[in-house]
Amino acid sequence: MRPTLTLITLGVADLARSLKFYRDGLQWETKSKLEDGVIFLKLNNIVLGLWPREELAKDAKMQNTPPAFSGIALAHNTKSKEEVDQIFAEVNALGAIITKTPENTFWGGYSGYFQDPDRHLWEVAWNPHWKIDSQGSVILP
Amino acid sequence: MRPTLTLITLGVADLARSLKFYRDGLQWETKSKLEDGVIFLKLNNIVLGLWPREELAKDAKMQNTPPAFSGIALAHNTKSKEEVDQIFAEVNALGAIITKTPENTFWGGYSGYFQDPDRHLWEVAWNPHWKIDSQGSVILP
Repeated sequence: MRPTLTLITLGVADLARSLKFYRDGLQWETKSKLEDGVIFLKLNNIVLGLWPREELAKDAKMQNTPPAFSGIALAHNTKSKEEVDQIFAEVNALGAIITKTPENTFWGGYSGYFQDPDRHLWEVAWNPHWKIDSQGSVILP
Repeated sequence: MRPTLTLITLGVADLARSLKFYRDGLQWETKSKLEDGVIFLKLNNIVLGLWPREELAKDAKMQNTPPAFSGIALAHNTKSKEEVDQIFAEVNALGAIITKTPENTFWGGYSGYFQDPDRHLWEVAWNPHWKIDSQGSVILP
């Protein structure tokens, strides 16, 4: 299995609500329509899928359980500390639940966490030890 | 917030066990060491982080709950149907729990799901409607 991650699918309760958040709110690009039943958003390097949680559970043959701490954080690394604050102002205006207002971290960076409408967790972080390439991807030291 | 996902952190119960699965088993590259307390693996286009679940919950100011259906699937798209079967043989030999043996899907592809040692869900799929670029990323139609 090559070290490749191509798509992340987030199980959602209400596709219209998720579209409103990701497409209309964050203005992330998609050609998918609500009536497709699944939404694919093109991120810089990966595809983000939105699909009813019930269907994802069924497809994976897992028991569906109510959203809780998923044990997974999706992260968005920025090129500056200021950008972190700007993003939190943006997602706050979109009604995201902020679990951690950005603060200085023990590893020398600056980060906060918010939840999308289905409580999927995003970290927005500035890490002075990591470089960001022209595509917005992290270059590990 | 630009449409960028730079890092995915998986909360794990036992870093050594996760290292064994991802680094020694799947042979995914990392310069991190167990004693670092966090592991970063360089995937084709994104960084995969492994961090104790307890610490991730604390960092995000979330209540830690036992692993269950996370509502998130990480997907690995292949260039052929055969590759899906090869990967399932590989992860099966590594002791992964297979929740769905690969089968033909309603959307015309071929896919299955397995869980890593912390029950994080991976889908391995061949989708004849999607092209894969030279980096292994999906090109959306």
